[in-house]
Amino acid sequence: MGTRTVCLTNRPGVIAWASVVGQKEKDGPYGGQFDVVIPNELNGKQSFEAAERSILETAVKLCAQHAGCTLGDVQMLLAGDLLNQIISAGFAARNLEIPFYGLYGACSTMSESLSIGSMIADGGFADRLICSTCSHFCTAERQYRAPLELGNQRTPTAQWTVTGSGAVMLSGGPAAQQAKIVATHATCGKVLDLGIADQNNMGAAMAPAAADTIEAHFRDTQRGFDDFDLVVTGDLGHLGRDLLIELLEQKGIAVQEDKLFDCGCQIFSPSQDTHCGGSGCGCAASMLCAHILPRLASGELRRVYFMATGALLSPTSTMQGESIPGVAHAIVLEHREA
Amino acid sequence: MGTRTVCLTNRPGVIAWASVVGQKEKDGPYGGQFDVVIPNELNGKQSFEAAERSILETAVKLCAQHAGCTLGDVQMLLAGDLLNQIISAGFAARNLEIPFYGLYGACSTMSESLSIGSMIADGGFADRLICSTCSHFCTAERQYRAPLELGNQRTPTAQWTVTGSGAVMLSGGPAAQQAKIVATHATCGKVLDLGIADQNNMGAAMAPAAADTIEAHFRDTQRGFDDFDLVVTGDLGHLGRDLLIELLEQKGIAVQEDKLFDCGCQIFSPSQDTHCGGSGCGCAASMLCAHILPRLASGELRRVYFMATGALLSPTSTMQGESIPGVAHAIVLEHREA
Repeated sequence: MGTRTVCLTNRPGVIAWASVVGQKEKDGPYGGQFDVVIPNELNGKQSFEAAERSILETAVKLCAQHAGCTLGDVQMLLAGDLLNQIISAGFAARNLEIPFYGLYGACSTMSESLSIGSMIADGGFADRLICSTCSHFCTAERQYRAPLELGNQRTPTAQWTVTGSGAVMLSGGPAAQQAKIVATHATCGKVLDLGIADQNNMGAAMAPAAADTIEAHFRDTQRGFDDFDLVVTGDLGHLGRDLLIELLEQKGIAVQEDKLFDCGCQIFSPSQDTHCGGSGCGCAASMLCAHILPRLASGELRRVYFMATGALLSPTSTMQGESIPGVAHAIVLEHREA
Repeated sequence: MGTRTVCLTNRPGVIAWASVVGQKEKDGPYGGQFDVVIPNELNGKQSFEAAERSILETAVKLCAQHAGCTLGDVQMLLAGDLLNQIISAGFAARNLEIPFYGLYGACSTMSESLSIGSMIADGGFADRLICSTCSHFCTAERQYRAPLELGNQRTPTAQWTVTGSGAVMLSGGPAAQQAKIVATHATCGKVLDLGIADQNNMGAAMAPAAADTIEAHFRDTQRGFDDFDLVVTGDLGHLGRDLLIELLEQKGIAVQEDKLFDCGCQIFSPSQDTHCGGSGCGCAASMLCAHILPRLASGELRRVYFMATGALLSPTSTMQGESIPGVAHAIVLEHREA
């Protein structure tokens, strides 16, 4: 085993999960699979930011409910989001009263939290911990791009930030016995930057990091596409997914395109006018919890490579002329026989 | 052992550390103890943001050098900072080429990274990982408060963001054999909010979380001030430290004030006009690496409780009328006999 990939020898269990999305996501091809759909962008709150944190809270509470435990039984919350100072996760953690480690990996946060959470669970430090992340179209647009009221035209390479959240409970203790899914490996991403400076082309900024992490993982574990039922990426979008395929082929990796499932390409239908697809850390998180984990639990999928990708820019770095570094963290999830 | 505190049974080793600060910190009472002092606020860069990331890079490189290894030997970097989207840590990770998990805990980030890093090392997932954080007076002022050029008057409760960084290498593998310091326990903080809404009074916002984590740790481990040579807090400042003492006494904890060392109270001298003291995640990080770890390594200190505290606000949450949630993460470090 190489140094980039860690082997989770105690195989921590994935014991529960939950997803929450908005109306546009409900109208997409996977609309019927999410646990909760909020009625509108404000979800009864005074601000989009308050609405965003409310969906993370809902996902975490529902996840605990699915696990048959209370929030007080959860030892740690590992969570983050896209907002400055991750206020969605931080304020949600205040209301949830679960001890909280805040993470920031932009759109890679779901696989970052699962990677760190799996290592913590594997080490025996938590019988129940929750990994979660969220994003919201309206908060992301005004923070990263422009106020919605401006009605700016979107470029062809743009992606649409998903309003959504996912929460996953992991266990490295007695609660793991009920798990139908286990985590087996994690690969930490390197921050790569090939000089993309267009903040409306995140897919291109993230693809090199995605290719690098896949290459490292396959090399470390002596595996390839043959060994997985699905290789899930977070939100590369249509352009980023194409670039990833090209980069992997340049590295001599035989890509099986039918197994390469990008949540950003999938969550909306072409008629929904989202250009290159969905994005935001809620994209991979909600799709994982709504569409991937149930199929792993049932045994329809046996082994999945899950890798969310993030663009580590800030509006400040962009204004200062910096290019956009990308990162991609991977975790391998397997069905466990009863 | 209660659920909030984890016991690091394999006792991961603290094998190297390094600190970098600015001129004002050099002029303080601990000025002679930092490894590197940058010549001015720009440190040869085009922007304060670029200068900030350069000090984190310098701290990490020097830490690896102190450990007698190359950056390529370091398996993970767990780091964060105060800037939006933690661009200091993210861009530094790009340049350092170390696999990177980004964290955000505001000024609690150093003890958050050490806590997570210790669990990862204890689980046997890394022979060498680095925990680091940084802050910079000029970037923090313009992001959180007002442009420096305005020359705003500072309120009496204000603190001065430290320009500084600290980096600590942990090992859960063969490299741990050289360690003179080990990590033994970690306590994850709960996000607490007692309704402080003044962003110039961070000490008061963070004190309740600090008191809560100390109470949880002492209860979980059946320990008190008697069991530690030093109880180090991050940057509560003079007002926050006084409040912490009051809150602990209300909880029935006997405080030994001579052992309660707040990095924010200590890093500057009263004549430096910093009002309530230093702040910023570089404050606890640089003081830990310059002043605490060397004394633990020598055996002058035998057991230290290290707890950085963070205020999880953002300028957006403040403008939306939200109060300021605080968090505090703790790690226990012990001298190890040769």
